[in-house]
Amino acid sequence: MGDSAFRREHRQALIDDRVSGASQLARQGLDSLAEYAGSCPAADAAELRRELLAFAEELQFSRPSMAPVYNLAQRFADQVDRLDVTDLAAMRTRSAAIAEELSDQSLEAVAGAARHAAALIDAGATVITHSSSSTVRGIFEYLPRDHARVIVSESRPGMEGRDQAHALATLGVPITYITEAQIGLFAGEATLAIVGADAILADGAVVNRAGTLLLALAARHHGIPFYACCESFKHSPFGPEGFELDEMPAKEVEPPRHKCVTARNIFFDITPARLVDGWITERGTRRNGS
Amino acid sequence: MGDSAFRREHRQALIDDRVSGASQLARQGLDSLAEYAGSCPAADAAELRRELLAFAEELQFSRPSMAPVYNLAQRFADQVDRLDVTDLAAMRTRSAAIAEELSDQSLEAVAGAARHAAALIDAGATVITHSSSSTVRGIFEYLPRDHARVIVSESRPGMEGRDQAHALATLGVPITYITEAQIGLFAGEATLAIVGADAILADGAVVNRAGTLLLALAARHHGIPFYACCESFKHSPFGPEGFELDEMPAKEVEPPRHKCVTARNIFFDITPARLVDGWITERGTRRNGS
Repeated sequence: MGDSAFRREHRQALIDDRVSGASQLARQGLDSLAEYAGSCPAADAAELRRELLAFAEELQFSRPSMAPVYNLAQRFADQVDRLDVTDLAAMRTRSAAIAEELSDQSLEAVAGAARHAAALIDAGATVITHSSSSTVRGIFEYLPRDHARVIVSESRPGMEGRDQAHALATLGVPITYITEAQIGLFAGEATLAIVGADAILADGAVVNRAGTLLLALAARHHGIPFYACCESFKHSPFGPEGFELDEMPAKEVEPPRHKCVTARNIFFDITPARLVDGWITERGTRRNGS
Repeated sequence: MGDSAFRREHRQALIDDRVSGASQLARQGLDSLAEYAGSCPAADAAELRRELLAFAEELQFSRPSMAPVYNLAQRFADQVDRLDVTDLAAMRTRSAAIAEELSDQSLEAVAGAARHAAALIDAGATVITHSSSSTVRGIFEYLPRDHARVIVSESRPGMEGRDQAHALATLGVPITYITEAQIGLFAGEATLAIVGADAILADGAVVNRAGTLLLALAARHHGIPFYACCESFKHSPFGPEGFELDEMPAKEVEPPRHKCVTARNIFFDITPARLVDGWITERGTRRNGS
């Protein structure tokens, strides 16, 4: 039986979300799976399992640039597939529990990565970041107010940086708010650059909101280290070859109207591993070349 | 006597203009000087000369990052200072003629630089540029429609890139319109990068709209050449040390409202000479290292 309307609606919500980071969306996917474990019409445990595996697969490929959406849905599917349960009610409870536990693991991993990153930030430092990342926000929950200043770029056209700046300011962190165009100037005022990530590719390249590559280039130009900070669920099994970068509707860029003008709105870019000085996860900091 | 209201108003118009490039503003300054030569209340030629020199000096320092505003007002002052005229009416006519002639020289130089740049663009090339430059627009007047494609970034917050994209599209040039955040991605699709300049510093560094440094870094990253194209009136006698970069009102960046948030809106950045592959002026193309 299933409930294809539920599946479609929840998958579409993941696709349409421009504001939440990859971790949040992955956990939102797990929430949907937990809810579906409870609500999905099914005659028996085997049918429910088939429904959950099919829904997990749909979610898994809903945001191809976001590794944790893929990884956590895959992890859920693997564990549900191995469940040795024949009772429908038990299948519902156990599947929902798997989703909730994975979600908790993800939150703990994010907090662990943030804690390791906080240890890299000396008092009086200036951190430059780009776009919005709940992991990067989390870093400053481990630091005293005024410990460090943060330079945040706005992240046109979605302006996620505006939310990031406001959220950090609410923690009492002094914020310098800039356009992307000023990243080259302001990287020169920073001590280090830290971004979240939507995925860390198999070769260490960082997939993150478009503009991150420019921040990495500016950091290298000014001789400051560039770190990617994220839970290890963001590690992708895939390399950069053929990696699909989400593109959003061009009209969000508000292009001039003319038949010769085509606007583009690619949501992510890929920063090659050689521009990354270190990868920070819940397991600690891995330096490039070490 | 003079007319301090006229001087103040015309100087302020130069200061407030966010849209026009440095060349256009320099010529607008010359127009103001020519007009002032005709309208300034003065008892005799000597008084008119003093008034014109004082006004030229005010204009000269109105846009400190824009070399031609400085250079053309200085050139005007030098020539008016040397005028061997004692009759008031003749002083008016001759001074206005000097301003008009310098303006014509500037326009010819811009066209010359554009013509030299056009020679660098092969059929089928993709040029990436940033912000708005009448010189860069001029290049495409020397090329057949469809000869080359141009990638233009919007240039937040003033969105001068939108005007640039529309003006180039009107010439029939196929345009790809992007946010600054996508410069890192799209430099990889381009054959060469060309920007105008507000000033070329004594050491060859390029002062241009903020974001230009990022384009130069992205061009180097992707292995495509980066050129600055401008009239030689943009050569500044000063080096980058202590060079003053205009800052515009922070509210234009539309920052989030919070007492911990300070927005910045620096209008220009400086691209060091080592990132510039060539300087194109009406005299031709000078390659870096040659």
